[in-house]
Amino acid sequence: MTPVQTKALPAIWSFARSMIGRYRHEITTPALLLDLPVVRLNIERMAERMNGHARLRPHAKSHKCAQLARLQIAAGAIGLTAATVWEAAALAEAGVEDILIANEVVHDNKIFELTRTASRARVTVAVDDLNNARTLSDAATKANTRIGVLIDVDIGLRRCGVRSEGAACELALRVGRLPHLELRGVMGYEGHCALEPDRPLRERKTSEAMLRLAGAASAIRSAGLPVEVISAGGTGTYDLTGSYPGITEIQAGSYVFMDAARQDLVPEFALGLTVLSTVVSRQDDTLVVDAGKKTIGVDFALPRLVGVEAKTRYVSEEHTVFDVAPSCALVVGQPVEIVPGYCPTTINLHDVYHVIEDGKVVEIWPVFARGPGGGGPT
Amino acid sequence: MTPVQTKALPAIWSFARSMIGRYRHEITTPALLLDLPVVRLNIERMAERMNGHARLRPHAKSHKCAQLARLQIAAGAIGLTAATVWEAAALAEAGVEDILIANEVVHDNKIFELTRTASRARVTVAVDDLNNARTLSDAATKANTRIGVLIDVDIGLRRCGVRSEGAACELALRVGRLPHLELRGVMGYEGHCALEPDRPLRERKTSEAMLRLAGAASAIRSAGLPVEVISAGGTGTYDLTGSYPGITEIQAGSYVFMDAARQDLVPEFALGLTVLSTVVSRQDDTLVVDAGKKTIGVDFALPRLVGVEAKTRYVSEEHTVFDVAPSCALVVGQPVEIVPGYCPTTINLHDVYHVIEDGKVVEIWPVFARGPGGGGPT
Repeated sequence: MTPVQTKALPAIWSFARSMIGRYRHEITTPALLLDLPVVRLNIERMAERMNGHARLRPHAKSHKCAQLARLQIAAGAIGLTAATVWEAAALAEAGVEDILIANEVVHDNKIFELTRTASRARVTVAVDDLNNARTLSDAATKANTRIGVLIDVDIGLRRCGVRSEGAACELALRVGRLPHLELRGVMGYEGHCALEPDRPLRERKTSEAMLRLAGAASAIRSAGLPVEVISAGGTGTYDLTGSYPGITEIQAGSYVFMDAARQDLVPEFALGLTVLSTVVSRQDDTLVVDAGKKTIGVDFALPRLVGVEAKTRYVSEEHTVFDVAPSCALVVGQPVEIVPGYCPTTINLHDVYHVIEDGKVVEIWPVFARGPGGGGPT
Repeated sequence: MTPVQTKALPAIWSFARSMIGRYRHEITTPALLLDLPVVRLNIERMAERMNGHARLRPHAKSHKCAQLARLQIAAGAIGLTAATVWEAAALAEAGVEDILIANEVVHDNKIFELTRTASRARVTVAVDDLNNARTLSDAATKANTRIGVLIDVDIGLRRCGVRSEGAACELALRVGRLPHLELRGVMGYEGHCALEPDRPLRERKTSEAMLRLAGAASAIRSAGLPVEVISAGGTGTYDLTGSYPGITEIQAGSYVFMDAARQDLVPEFALGLTVLSTVVSRQDDTLVVDAGKKTIGVDFALPRLVGVEAKTRYVSEEHTVFDVAPSCALVVGQPVEIVPGYCPTTINLHDVYHVIEDGKVVEIWPVFARGPGGGGPT
């Protein structure tokens, strides 16, 4: 059986670029639309709000886009956050000089890519396991590079991270002695607070989480080790973590686009990302469009139709089904825009952003490191 | 701002192909593993069970893979089913000669691709709207090609499809007169029955759905029009629809791989697809791996860990978190395999299948037409 080459990205890229200068209704659906003025405003607004002691290190997992990373740096971000080593590699390639991988990096091939990236940019990585730290140290030594380390502390999410101040301190003491690693501080992610709709409860839960993170930092400092960085924060909690005493960096990322899951939680940012879609069926009270779970992220919230009185009934692989009034004027063939349920998983499903200004496509921006994101050392 | 080229597919492709002959634990995680002997057996088993009047036209949306389509054809499938025009184009490129797009095709660029595909293969498409049919007819006339049409009938899912026998008959009469379109019959999808865990209830609901589909077919025949094809069926209901009087084609696709959502519903097929992953964190009763919603489809069911006593706690973007006993021997760095919650959305997140036989990678097969799947005319 002979292998069959899939449609290569350059074909998609060159077709997408042929859309520059065209109106949005000419774009083949489904397609990601990025509202450039709104995204610029969101980036500016977040930069303005970071006027306390905490600095912004926006998370690239929400956009996976070199151009957006550069806009964030230009607006004052101290660097970028990445979820995977492949995102970090793409950010370094885009010219970002200071990158935090806010996750454990495990697996020889990924650690090799990490050392390559660390030779091009200042790279810091989360660690919650001594053996993993030893492997990182060996790889960094072999590559003759230095890798920064934050001790990952579980602050209530119960995912990665050491479970106590004592464990954080013990790991820091050992990591601090490993060659070619630089202990830079601690990080914790309050992901269990970020989507809490009750604002006072969100504040209380976030405060408890930050108390745990600050406690781990104090314990490490008491042992005579440096804690230059205390990193936390998401879009749903950025203002709380950003003003908590001692927090130095905020990892919020989705503020750039927003989505249905967070629109009501953080109304100071505007919707900057939609999925352009086409009505493919209309029967009485049922409207169906050509975008579903293979092109829209539906984590935490259902997608919403823009500017049309409609209730989202359900989302299947290639369709979203809406309840509309029988009087709704939409018919088969018309374009509609959809607010994604959750932006980080939506952008992961697309090759490119169609960057829109004044109703026209002004740029095509690629989405990097999608899915497994690897492809091995470049 | 200059555009930045993303990592092109050929790089991923060539890196993935360098894994041929290697052991599975050498593969960079997360990665799709296709168990070739199991998949071959599933394909054979389904072919054996299609010995009634209905023939198999397996759905390519579940695998998006040229090599699997060819194995299905070799096992006796009469053609393939596609969800999008891009899947249909990729199938035609793979040499599949008879393709049903079990969806409405709307939008000029997609209809153009449809006419191109129809010039290379026998193509049939679902229609539930007269204006859409007229547009298809105009495009087929202009391209001097013929497009087959099935009247799409809603049989209880309330998504696409005309809502009554009368509407089906009226649309068929009009479509039958449009130039360069060939009315071939009807289709309906009993998606509202396929995941019903109570087998007697699943049977009753499926039977009701088939009654509606057969009714629409009868009405069209009574009007003197041909109904050569009555198409339905998914993996959860294939044996019910496949034995219902008058049904000619079954669209089941996910039987090839199976997944956590359907493993208990259709136990006659075996699990042939996993996501290879690495343990990235282990704290007491919590095990975390490096695969989450950006690499595993979680629709309808949570993913499961293979061969390890573990309860899936939750799935986030880059992680799945499991509850394990404190005595569980897994540590950071070890490879594990995960059964996806839902296979069609899982494969949509990956570039390639690592085809495994006797514990080694024997082939790399690309996944075609992912996400929006377009990229425009090739």
